[in-house]
Amino acid sequence: MAQLAFIGKDSVDRVRAAGGDADARLALLADICRLNALVAVKRAGSGHLGSSFSALDVVVHLLCSELNVAELGFDHPDRDVFFSSKGHDVPGLYAALYGLGVLSADRLARLRRLGGLDGHPDVGVPGIEANSGSLGMGISKGRGIAWAKRRAARGGVVVVMTGDGELQEGQNWEALQAAAHERLGRLWIVVDCNELQSDKPTDEILALGDLETKLRAFGWEVAACDGHDHAALRAVFARFREGGDTPKALVAETIKGRGVSFMEHPAALAVDGGTYRWHAGAPDDDAFERAREELVTRIEAAFESLGLAPPEYEPLPALEDTRSLEGEPESGAGTRLRSGVTDEYVVGAYGEELVALAERHESLVVLDADLASDCRVRAFELAYPERFLECGIAEQDMVSTAAGLARHGFLPVVNSFASFLASRANEQIYNQASEGTKVVYALHYAGLIPAGPGKSHQSVRDVSLLGALPGITIVQPANADETGALLRWAVEEADGNVAIRLAIGPSPRRIELPGHGLEWGRAALLREGSDAILFAYGPVLLHEALLASERLAEDGFGLAVANMPWLNVVDAEWLAEIVEPHRHVLVLEDHAPVGALGDTLRRALRAHEVTVFGVEGWPACGTPLEALRHHGLDGASLADRIASLARVRVP
Amino acid sequence: MAQLAFIGKDSVDRVRAAGGDADARLALLADICRLNALVAVKRAGSGHLGSSFSALDVVVHLLCSELNVAELGFDHPDRDVFFSSKGHDVPGLYAALYGLGVLSADRLARLRRLGGLDGHPDVGVPGIEANSGSLGMGISKGRGIAWAKRRAARGGVVVVMTGDGELQEGQNWEALQAAAHERLGRLWIVVDCNELQSDKPTDEILALGDLETKLRAFGWEVAACDGHDHAALRAVFARFREGGDTPKALVAETIKGRGVSFMEHPAALAVDGGTYRWHAGAPDDDAFERAREELVTRIEAAFESLGLAPPEYEPLPALEDTRSLEGEPESGAGTRLRSGVTDEYVVGAYGEELVALAERHESLVVLDADLASDCRVRAFELAYPERFLECGIAEQDMVSTAAGLARHGFLPVVNSFASFLASRANEQIYNQASEGTKVVYALHYAGLIPAGPGKSHQSVRDVSLLGALPGITIVQPANADETGALLRWAVEEADGNVAIRLAIGPSPRRIELPGHGLEWGRAALLREGSDAILFAYGPVLLHEALLASERLAEDGFGLAVANMPWLNVVDAEWLAEIVEPHRHVLVLEDHAPVGALGDTLRRALRAHEVTVFGVEGWPACGTPLEALRHHGLDGASLADRIASLARVRVP
Repeated sequence: MAQLAFIGKDSVDRVRAAGGDADARLALLADICRLNALVAVKRAGSGHLGSSFSALDVVVHLLCSELNVAELGFDHPDRDVFFSSKGHDVPGLYAALYGLGVLSADRLARLRRLGGLDGHPDVGVPGIEANSGSLGMGISKGRGIAWAKRRAARGGVVVVMTGDGELQEGQNWEALQAAAHERLGRLWIVVDCNELQSDKPTDEILALGDLETKLRAFGWEVAACDGHDHAALRAVFARFREGGDTPKALVAETIKGRGVSFMEHPAALAVDGGTYRWHAGAPDDDAFERAREELVTRIEAAFESLGLAPPEYEPLPALEDTRSLEGEPESGAGTRLRSGVTDEYVVGAYGEELVALAERHESLVVLDADLASDCRVRAFELAYPERFLECGIAEQDMVSTAAGLARHGFLPVVNSFASFLASRANEQIYNQASEGTKVVYALHYAGLIPAGPGKSHQSVRDVSLLGALPGITIVQPANADETGALLRWAVEEADGNVAIRLAIGPSPRRIELPGHGLEWGRAALLREGSDAILFAYGPVLLHEALLASERLAEDGFGLAVANMPWLNVVDAEWLAEIVEPHRHVLVLEDHAPVGALGDTLRRALRAHEVTVFGVEGWPACGTPLEALRHHGLDGASLADRIASLARVRVP
Repeated sequence: MAQLAFIGKDSVDRVRAAGGDADARLALLADICRLNALVAVKRAGSGHLGSSFSALDVVVHLLCSELNVAELGFDHPDRDVFFSSKGHDVPGLYAALYGLGVLSADRLARLRRLGGLDGHPDVGVPGIEANSGSLGMGISKGRGIAWAKRRAARGGVVVVMTGDGELQEGQNWEALQAAAHERLGRLWIVVDCNELQSDKPTDEILALGDLETKLRAFGWEVAACDGHDHAALRAVFARFREGGDTPKALVAETIKGRGVSFMEHPAALAVDGGTYRWHAGAPDDDAFERAREELVTRIEAAFESLGLAPPEYEPLPALEDTRSLEGEPESGAGTRLRSGVTDEYVVGAYGEELVALAERHESLVVLDADLASDCRVRAFELAYPERFLECGIAEQDMVSTAAGLARHGFLPVVNSFASFLASRANEQIYNQASEGTKVVYALHYAGLIPAGPGKSHQSVRDVSLLGALPGITIVQPANADETGALLRWAVEEADGNVAIRLAIGPSPRRIELPGHGLEWGRAALLREGSDAILFAYGPVLLHEALLASERLAEDGFGLAVANMPWLNVVDAEWLAEIVEPHRHVLVLEDHAPVGALGDTLRRALRAHEVTVFGVEGWPACGTPLEALRHHGLDGASLADRIASLARVRVP
């Protein structure tokens, strides 16, 4: 394990207080933040470095030089407001806030940990002005804040950083036109134009064309400059300050991975055969050391050339190890569960089955919204490029495009994270369904875990979001085999829409299913038990259910565990029979307690009490175990909750 | 009542077969369609004339001259595909399809009636290529169809008509960039650029700026012409035919209300003090006669000048009268219930209470997405212009703007139709809520009725869409007083977000509530009864519930009826007490049977059987009575269902 240390706040203060070339000092501060972000991400085991690094010169320039917020504080009504709409660049922002004394080293060391720093921006963290991470909402929020400042006659500008790929999201263009219409001259956006999306160039995914012309056509004052050149940034912002009531956009030309040679675009792209590997995820020990070495060498030289004593390093405090550091999905969305079974990715089996089905079904087409690696549809893209539609970060367009395809004889399989697809494209899914066509919606990264990215990414509402849609079937597989079987059922047998929820990480254990295969509306009993029956689904919470059953068995309490992959339909007659011998009917939801399997079973069981354990309130950010414990959904907590329920209810 | 007659298909055929000036004949055909659309809308009692009239020259030009679909038929794989994304111009399209023999006179006479023609396009109707009506999805769908044609090597172009105001919706810009990226040269859009939104000029609501420059910046080939000039249209489409693989956009400059002098923009605007009254809704008898007279005079003169015998008129068949023709909301969304109590609009009380609250609460701001008249926030706009944010047709931007406002000390009240707001802006609502701020969401036009506009507008999923959101309270008032009380509670007392569902039409009867006022989580008993208790909410279904109770009382069956305005929270202890004396606990949902009050009560009652009557499947289009009967939710059907339930379950 690498030795982890931040460059301390005192060293940052010395740089800020030093005389000499202000721009050189800003460049140095940005590099210090890069190093500290690198260390924080290495510690966390996941996080977005490429985009943190491309944005950091702008972030440091704004916070340490251009804006008044460091001086006035984050509660002052006249402060300049700065936040990032893309949000995944937040490790860099955290590092900058640490340098300003807003965040402690202890907290920075707890990136993506419970009670530490959320994987995407959350206003619960000091210095964070807006929740983001789901893309495309920031300009709208900035417009609201700029309007509020004007209405309340408060000072300050509002600066929103966006990605370039992020601009594919239509909401940006709604907000751009509205801000221009309302003459919100104190609203600025800075496009961190690093030319790469999650792992491919924007020009390949969905080209933006002439962005400056577009922004001008939408009524904005537009400037462009090298986003790593502090003199150029200074000049642009000075012009913006002079400007009138037209909102202002800076297209900052940046380099993804800036500051670490082997992470820099375009060189990094060439090494990995055209995909960029540093969008997210922590580097392994070797890459970490090489990156650290490069940054440290440059930083120490800069200290010297500014006539400063070398920087001091502050070792990170130790933390309880509740997660493994190795291996996570390409987007960094996930952190592998500690006991993860690598060959038991349900999403991996999904990707393989999709390719197999494509061979038999000419009409099958796959749609992606810039998450091809995470959603495991890259293999399909390579095998069937002519049946793969890359839609960019534009879920609504993706779904309505699928609607058009379905009306004209194709069977679209639509992919994104559940939190984005079921929610942002919800009305488009309703509209598609209303045409009587069939589409398969793959809801990736469903459920509480991984919990590191935080609530923007955790999907615990998707079943309720689709449950009232006529004719849809919502399912979630427990293991790789069931993933294949459910996808085959969806493609080959289902009459209407199917939404298939998929866990994004590897399984904490292989869920062994009895051999009788898929039966519509029925669960499979994984463990016998005479005192209560617990229905669960998906590898993450089935694992916890089995743990609970194992633990309760030690106390002589028989907890039967059933895998119920059908979340909104059930064979009611069969259900009545299966629950009959049990005093307690329990449901474990990888979802809010509202609107999912528990409600389905209550509707079917009529007058039977059903107790639901689910994700209450906002999903917690942290390691898997931290998040599960926080919600009382880990095996041990569950065992306790079930035991006490039985004590209270059965005298 | 006006004498209603269409110009018959034979007359249309004579015009189409006549020699002479092709463009004059197209102009005449458009006028015939205007007349027939006018008659159909007059019969229906609602529908969108202004936009049908502005679009009709283009529609007729495409279907009767430019495209191959009239010749090949609507099932041919190589056909040109044409549809309207805005969809509310469908009366004009229906009239054109009638002229082509695709729809019968009988069906055209059944606009907005059950089994007739949906108020917005539905693929269940011959000649309709895509479901639309909720704005902004059409270009995406067209892109899917164009992609399908290319992939399957089929012939034909794909032409999508959009509104100009509709382009405020961000999804359009997602689709525009994607179509350009994919070089879909056979995708054309025609912007029916009539410069008016629902009742105000686009430039006032949210100016589009230089639309042609925008479209070019997004990579499209762009042309502009007078959208009523057939020679000009012909020339543009000929150029489009020659074009390569760049998608093509025509900005058709049109006049809203074209063809009837007093409905034409801008003159019509001047008459009504700056708002346009012919966007939707049927004209009264006098206006109908004047409009008909104008059109008939011009049509008959044109027949004569083409050397044709006068047109023949076909009287409309009689229909069972299940609706009143007078009075509907400005947007034409609603049709007044037959026995409507005009002074008992809950939405009217909402608008008044909002103004009253604004006086006491400086921080209260109102956001609108171009439905200010229907949502009854016009009075607020006039009283507090500086606290009114018109967001245009851009629900996502509106919600995230509200999030920014709420973070900076304002209390936003966000307005749109429930079907758009709870669904399209769902992820934005989640994001706002995750910041811990408070916003009041006014979900207008919630529920099954009015059923004339069809499933794009009927909202029977919104409770389930918001139910899993932490901390939100979802309510629906039964009458004007309760509307005021709930809005006051939302603004002054509620801790977190509140979603308030509002019926858009007048009440079918005044729902008399006992005087004890609002009690959190508790229902008010409207009628005693010892055999069963029925929980319902909102004026529409409470009326039916009371009807059922009255009818059952005649047979000696005591059906208690309770008004339960709290849809996702309940005082569980109180509930257990109130249901205790009853053999049957029943819930009547103005919603799908999934995800609303029934599920809430089941969760609270634990082991009590709860029977739910709700809107099963897709909400039916028709008059109120037709739709209620279709779903078995009118008082008579309900009484029967409850009686038979009691017979079966209680021996």
